Amino acid sequence: MSISSLASVEPVVPKAPAANQFEGGCVFIDGAYAPLSEAKISMFDWGFTRSDVTYDVATTWHGSFFRLDAHIERFFVSLKKMNLAIQYDRDALRDILHGCVRASGLQDGYVAMVCTRGVPPKGARDPRQAQNRFYAYALPYMWIASREKQLAGIDLHISERQRISPASVDPTIKNYHWMDLVQSMFDAYENGHDTSCVVDADGNITEGPGFNVFAVKDGVVYTADRGVLEGISRRTAIELCGSLGIPLRVAPMPVAALRDADEVFITSSGGGVLPIAKIDGKPLPRFPQQFPGPITTRLYDGYWAMHDDPAFSDPVDYRA
Amino acid sequence: MSISSLASVEPVVPKAPAANQFEGGCVFIDGAYAPLSEAKISMFDWGFTRSDVTYDVATTWHGSFFRLDAHIERFFVSLKKMNLAIQYDRDALRDILHGCVRASGLQDGYVAMVCTRGVPPKGARDPRQAQNRFYAYALPYMWIASREKQLAGIDLHISERQRISPASVDPTIKNYHWMDLVQSMFDAYENGHDTSCVVDADGNITEGPGFNVFAVKDGVVYTADRGVLEGISRRTAIELCGSLGIPLRVAPMPVAALRDADEVFITSSGGGVLPIAKIDGKPLPRFPQQFPGPITTRLYDGYWAMHDDPAFSDPVDYRA
Repeated sequence: MSISSLASVEPVVPKAPAANQFEGGCVFIDGAYAPLSEAKISMFDWGFTRSDVTYDVATTWHGSFFRLDAHIERFFVSLKKMNLAIQYDRDALRDILHGCVRASGLQDGYVAMVCTRGVPPKGARDPRQAQNRFYAYALPYMWIASREKQLAGIDLHISERQRISPASVDPTIKNYHWMDLVQSMFDAYENGHDTSCVVDADGNITEGPGFNVFAVKDGVVYTADRGVLEGISRRTAIELCGSLGIPLRVAPMPVAALRDADEVFITSSGGGVLPIAKIDGKPLPRFPQQFPGPITTRLYDGYWAMHDDPAFSDPVDYRA
Repeated sequence: MSISSLASVEPVVPKAPAANQFEGGCVFIDGAYAPLSEAKISMFDWGFTRSDVTYDVATTWHGSFFRLDAHIERFFVSLKKMNLAIQYDRDALRDILHGCVRASGLQDGYVAMVCTRGVPPKGARDPRQAQNRFYAYALPYMWIASREKQLAGIDLHISERQRISPASVDPTIKNYHWMDLVQSMFDAYENGHDTSCVVDADGNITEGPGFNVFAVKDGVVYTADRGVLEGISRRTAIELCGSLGIPLRVAPMPVAALRDADEVFITSSGGGVLPIAKIDGKPLPRFPQQFPGPITTRLYDGYWAMHDDPAFSDPVDYRA
């Protein structure tokens, strides 16, 4: 048994903070709620110096969490794959995330849970010797692109840069290894595009910074089967295809298939289903006359309709 | 011109701190020297949440920096490749690093310089919109393995995990993308080995967590030519081969070549030239009778002898 796994023996249930105690944003750090100004980690935490960290991000919309259980479940899977452990069980974690939102007073929130390897004992190099650290925070909801930008038409750059291979880093563990994505963003912005996605070694589309990528061709929806984060918003779009009777293929997606698509959209907790208007500056067939396309529109509407379904909704208690 | 590059217009020369002001360790943060307890970064800095950061580590030994110019030069090359900028020029950076050591009073020191992308403006996603942040610190010298462990015999695990490919992250930029290396360390420790190295997609040896790998066979020294950090200690070993007349091949190094080697050593600022005794538990030919091997010993001695050469040495002023 590793030292870090000992931390999970006794679940702790933290007390709920006062409503609006840290209005506009709240962090949970060292076992207590605090203002965002205290959201700092040690410069020596391996979570920074080795990016030895996993995280997840849930959202609240109009005062309720969306698919919170799915985010918590994925976070615990990521922890296990990383040999990380937190001192909270699923219920306590849920309480902490609710507490962050309650204290922030945010109706529409970006709610992160983070676990770092921790600060090593003096001179240590063995990751098993660090005490893992847990953080959570609530910030205002963040859009991958604003609604105005979505309607004006997001221009997606397809980078030749390769996403870090699953042979190196398991992409199903939500991670901060983003140098490849950041460099692709520089390429995109310097050339006037709005965002970017990267490929794998075989030239198939993988993902972009914080989102999965979907193509629609002749009424069929396509998305990558491997080398990508299994996004909760991606899962939502996949499930919506099932419930709406839209044919779906989850398989390797060549760059050419994306360039030749009838519709393209991306999925992210930062906006749900977001229509793409242009690929590397070239408008998709329906832009701007029939934009967003019909299937993107159905999935977009379906995504937001699910927010009203009690099965996926977890209301926050904001009462004083 | 990006916002971040504006930061480099006016070089600032910070004042030297008092000698021993922060005995045992010192950080330079927000333009001032401070105790290690203040060595914290924002949880929202993209240097953490995207591992969008580069760094370098120099060392002091017996009161002098070793090859400080080479570390500073590599750091500036990494900054440029990353589209990062700091508000200090090379001379000011040198002064800051000397200041950290002077304030810490450390004769044998681990001296880091770090630049993060910075905290984004509210809701921003464009890396050009962040103001880059610079940090430096001095800690006690850190060994990859203690001298006792080196002589007892370091056991190196060859992992099947792949180092992040140069097609994703340029390995000549010193970076914190270590999830692959950390997972290989878990494999090593769980199986009783002391450390690990990882391979590339073609099955060639790349590097380990914080070190380059060398093999010696029939009097010839081998090390990887690609997919690795171009370590300053690696360079020192390469240059020593030249000056000592030891044949050297810098080329892809198959796993089999390492397993079949007469001698193996690793190079790191955390100990210079460190002899390896065993590969995955199997002793190398000369262990323990003639260990370290003759070429490793010559390079080991040469490495430390260079510390007395004024051409590579930069003494710290510790006077009050």
